Amino acid sequence: MRLLEEIDPGIGNHLYRFASELYPICRSITGDGVRQTLAGIQSRIPLQISEVPTGTQVFDWNVPREWNIRDAYIKDAAGNRVVDFQACNLHVLNYSSPVRKVMSLQEIRPHLFTIPERPEWVPYRTSYYREDWGFCMSHNQMQALTDGNYDVCIDSTLTQDHLTYGECYLVGRSTDEVLISCHICHPSLANNNLSGLTVATALAELLVGRELRYSYRFLFIPGTIGAITWLWRNRENVGRIRHGVVLTGIGNESEFHYKKSRSGNAEIDRAMKQVLHENGRPYELLEFSPYGYDERQYGSPGFNLPVGCLMRSVWGTFPEYHTSADNLDFVKPERLAESLRVCASVVMVLENNRRYRNLNPYCEPQLGKRGLYRSTGGKPIEAEINALLWVLNLSDGSHSLLDIAEQSSLPFEMIHNAAGKLQENGLLSVFYESADQAREAAAGNIAQVTSRR
Amino acid sequence: MRLLEEIDPGIGNHLYRFASELYPICRSITGDGVRQTLAGIQSRIPLQISEVPTGTQVFDWNVPREWNIRDAYIKDAAGNRVVDFQACNLHVLNYSSPVRKVMSLQEIRPHLFTIPERPEWVPYRTSYYREDWGFCMSHNQMQALTDGNYDVCIDSTLTQDHLTYGECYLVGRSTDEVLISCHICHPSLANNNLSGLTVATALAELLVGRELRYSYRFLFIPGTIGAITWLWRNRENVGRIRHGVVLTGIGNESEFHYKKSRSGNAEIDRAMKQVLHENGRPYELLEFSPYGYDERQYGSPGFNLPVGCLMRSVWGTFPEYHTSADNLDFVKPERLAESLRVCASVVMVLENNRRYRNLNPYCEPQLGKRGLYRSTGGKPIEAEINALLWVLNLSDGSHSLLDIAEQSSLPFEMIHNAAGKLQENGLLSVFYESADQAREAAAGNIAQVTSRR
Amino acid sequence: MRLLEEIDPGIGNHLYRFASELYPICRSITGDGVRQTLAGIQSRIPLQISEVPTGTQVFDWNVPREWNIRDAYIKDAAGNRVVDFQACNLHVLNYSSPVRKVMSLQEIRPHLFTIPERPEWVPYRTSYYREDWGFCMSHNQMQALTDGNYDVCIDSTLTQDHLTYGECYLVGRSTDEVLISCHICHPSLANNNLSGLTVATALAELLVGRELRYSYRFLFIPGTIGAITWLWRNRENVGRIRHGVVLTGIGNESEFHYKKSRSGNAEIDRAMKQVLHENGRPYELLEFSPYGYDERQYGSPGFNLPVGCLMRSVWGTFPEYHTSADNLDFVKPERLAESLRVCASVVMVLENNRRYRNLNPYCEPQLGKRGLYRSTGGKPIEAEINALLWVLNLSDGSHSLLDIAEQSSLPFEMIHNAAGKLQENGLLSVFYESADQAREAAAGNIAQVTSRR
Repeated sequence: MRLLEEIDPGIGNHLYRFASELYPICRSITGDGVRQTLAGIQSRIPLQISEVPTGTQVFDWNVPREWNIRDAYIKDAAGNRVVDFQACNLHVLNYSSPVRKVMSLQEIRPHLFTIPERPEWVPYRTSYYREDWGFCMSHNQMQALTDGNYDVCIDSTLTQDHLTYGECYLVGRSTDEVLISCHICHPSLANNNLSGLTVATALAELLVGRELRYSYRFLFIPGTIGAITWLWRNRENVGRIRHGVVLTGIGNESEFHYKKSRSGNAEIDRAMKQVLHENGRPYELLEFSPYGYDERQYGSPGFNLPVGCLMRSVWGTFPEYHTSADNLDFVKPERLAESLRVCASVVMVLENNRRYRNLNPYCEPQLGKRGLYRSTGGKPIEAEINALLWVLNLSDGSHSLLDIAEQSSLPFEMIHNAAGKLQENGLLSVFYESADQAREAAAGNIAQVTSRR
Repeated sequence: MRLLEEIDPGIGNHLYRFASELYPICRSITGDGVRQTLAGIQSRIPLQISEVPTGTQVFDWNVPREWNIRDAYIKDAAGNRVVDFQACNLHVLNYSSPVRKVMSLQEIRPHLFTIPERPEWVPYRTSYYREDWGFCMSHNQMQALTDGNYDVCIDSTLTQDHLTYGECYLVGRSTDEVLISCHICHPSLANNNLSGLTVATALAELLVGRELRYSYRFLFIPGTIGAITWLWRNRENVGRIRHGVVLTGIGNESEFHYKKSRSGNAEIDRAMKQVLHENGRPYELLEFSPYGYDERQYGSPGFNLPVGCLMRSVWGTFPEYHTSADNLDFVKPERLAESLRVCASVVMVLENNRRYRNLNPYCEPQLGKRGLYRSTGGKPIEAEINALLWVLNLSDGSHSLLDIAEQSSLPFEMIHNAAGKLQENGLLSVFYESADQAREAAAGNIAQVTSRR
Repeated sequence: MRLLEEIDPGIGNHLYRFASELYPICRSITGDGVRQTLAGIQSRIPLQISEVPTGTQVFDWNVPREWNIRDAYIKDAAGNRVVDFQACNLHVLNYSSPVRKVMSLQEIRPHLFTIPERPEWVPYRTSYYREDWGFCMSHNQMQALTDGNYDVCIDSTLTQDHLTYGECYLVGRSTDEVLISCHICHPSLANNNLSGLTVATALAELLVGRELRYSYRFLFIPGTIGAITWLWRNRENVGRIRHGVVLTGIGNESEFHYKKSRSGNAEIDRAMKQVLHENGRPYELLEFSPYGYDERQYGSPGFNLPVGCLMRSVWGTFPEYHTSADNLDFVKPERLAESLRVCASVVMVLENNRRYRNLNPYCEPQLGKRGLYRSTGGKPIEAEINALLWVLNLSDGSHSLLDIAEQSSLPFEMIHNAAGKLQENGLLSVFYESADQAREAAAGNIAQVTSRR
């Protein structure tokens, strides 16, 4: 399977264009904004959309009411909209209850949110679980308000309806799954998280219709309550998730940050490290912590799933976080494309990472007679031959190709190619750890498929 | 239980005053100096005093004779005391056999001990196990001696009598013990070890009469032979010692040094590290070594007890060590007080360090509906909420609160408070590792007591 | 047993002289050059020489034909030898097939090997497994060749004959073996590997006739095919190899490099580290890799033997590697001597590294009454006493003397001496891990022998 070679060279611009289409939609944890967003995704990949009724109990939580909004503003006495939802959907405290009233500035003030340190930016604030209403605005905007009465309107509804999420499931030879999850509840914020959902969509597009080792499940869900709802509905089957990653904030210029899964040394963690290392640019690995994105829920102690989180900037550590400055200027086509390449490389590692058994374990086999060794001795050895020796030496059933790549400091792909050559030459065979794996292999004739290119 | 808040703000001066009272007493490994010292301690805390007869075999050793001394001097021909025990009890080689003789300077010289590099200081020397006599003096003092005859007198006795030690035992809910041990055999040396015994006494005072999880045993014993004697007499019960620390040299200006127990990762070692880290000043952790103070005996391979050693300056590494410069100027009230606070903090960690079980382990519980979460989303999270999330995430029965404090880099007390809040809200319960623990808990209703403040 | 003290102070010169004698011989993987070299070794130590017939299958390989060479040259039209094997045996591509032909420079060129970056040096090249002929020469030499015809002669033979290797086996009390292996297939190259084989010979000379704990096996074999052949013939017994090291390139000025065995923490690895550390000069430890010298074969996954590799410069990392500059000027008598001392020290560690049991494990024994402790207390402790305390504290059956040397940072010999003193005083006994070991000990009265000096 070749993934990286098949990524469209113009993919960065495609991703950016898709993000731009979704940018204006006012999303929240429920409502039509989510549905419109999922429709956009569904036009690109097969997507099953679920609607979960308000009030459904999901573990310790209940599915909240559905929120929809048509308009919101504060009008001054002259009828001018001094704050206008139509201009920017961040202006409304997300999930605001409806209000329609003439109020003095005095009365309105407790419902206004600004960022005094960044007087030009509008903050993004939410109030999902305490009924409230409010407006977010730039500090300059607020400063300019004069005393007097204002016509305050939030034309929203909170109804007994549904929570909506989307799921793209690609069947592989194994029922073991790779989970890619991203939240779709943020309104006009580009990096967080249109970057995640556009890249996830593109990755799914890339995988659709391929012969895959693992099954792949892409979740497009509202943050927290969406993950909790999905986990509740799928609680019997989450054991199939062998590897997982949350994608968020992967469109801006920052270097990559990968937050490890709860165990800290899951295969996904090591695959990510290998790929980010091979990517050649600086990156940082973060230990798991229980605050962050939906890896919080996947990594709760009852589930303890091997799900990490790939980011560029880390939440809360950069000024644009949760403000109007996280806009389409903040994300870059080439960064979106690089994020997709990283994800595709991780898929390649997961698909190809196996243990092998050296069929000729006593001394080195004579590679020369098989055309795998240079014929004139005495000079330094080439990396490709070195890769063959490493794979032979460590293929004792206890080292995976990823182990070998780590120990040898050679690229995973070179190690994987070496394994393929050795297998073709009858020097190596896949080491099956269980009858299940052998069956999976028999079904898909996996070994040959994955070792050829 | 609140310990730190109940430490008298003037405690440093109290400790210093107590040290000053004990300073003039001429202590040794046996004798009335030890008894007077124990009497001083007994006036503050309940103390059981033991007398062990000379000659008693204690493992490979025998309890030595009792040493007492009335006077000692070297008089010149004119009758002037050129060295005088009355001026400073360090002047006599500690445990000297008696002598009364007129001798030439030539004959006396092999019995004189000085520190040429510190010509003003008197060294502290001992001869417990080889019968000998001698004088310690400043190098200047010795240089000033002129040839001629001197009247040499050491009016000491070595008799078949007793070795004396004191023990303060505070009963807790569990028979598992915390051992605090300090040596009381040094004469007028302030830091080593009046600092240790005054702080140990104050810690015992602080704990007397409290509802405690562990039982606490404070030992005031002569170094080496005292520890060996105590271990011999209590050899059947030392398995109860779950945590222990030797206190010595904790009154001077140096930063803290904690020498780990023999295993190197006992709970006491980790509790000490946590507390010294939270103390906010530099500190150093030292690996266990078989030389040092009585942790040598507690950590002998047959016992292998989890007993570390808290010091400021490390033995043998500073010029004042074992000299007359280790006097009352060398220790400082505020350093004694800080050492007590550190010890009390360690007690708090040991008392409260438990494993808990998250009763709602699938996804996060909804903290907001219990008033434990901020209601407006979108801003960075507060440390207290973070502590709740950490405790929930790691309370899987395999992580203690100390583990959680380490992993989260949050203060132990904040983690402990979070556990208390979660327990009050029915989200957490103590995880009992054995029937014993559950019984202990039932007896003391421990969970509630320790989670409230 | 004292080894280091018995090394001749002039050993460096002896080693160098032996290397000089062997330098002119044209060795290869088979043939009379190998036989002459082994004869030189056999004149110093008992050596069993094996001849293995051409064509014998050894694992995945076959023993190659025997190569011998009488002469080789390229003569110009005037009859001058422009390249002459008689002047330097590196001039012939090692293992060249015979050729005798008049050829144009054009035709000859593809068979010429030079090093353009080092125009004065002749490279060392081989062609064992693809039939070929060629000449190696300095780049200057090649540049000087003018167009025209040349008389090309390689007067070699490749015959169905034998592969030859030598083996020196010294019987110890145990059948467990220490393997010292070095390759003898390189022609006039001094550091690689006359240094290895002369030091190995001297180490064997030093051990001959001694009472030894382990049996020692010295292999003088052609690289790769020799190790494979030996392993094939001894495949049933290699399990006896408890420790092993390949010696190569240990005569030049570089600091030591020790490449660890495949497991990375075998006793030989730790013994080497200890000895190189105590040697007091910089050194470097390298992780195992499957490329290098014959540790590749010993460390193939089917054998996985604890065999490391001691070098000074690492193959391929210095310009003289595999060139005529690796000559007798490149190796130094004092470096050869130091390498022998390091090897002898490693033997001392392996011979003496045992676990002991403290017979008095409860508290410290009273060392003073046995004359093992200073009598006047109060001063810093001496390293020798500290060594006694360390051995007592860690002799719980789970720590070897090497463990104790590592933990205490004291020299291995001091730790070993301390164990001897404690054993003499009845405070320590050898801890036998198996009936086999006890039997070995009973046979050789090992404990006493090794603890005395």
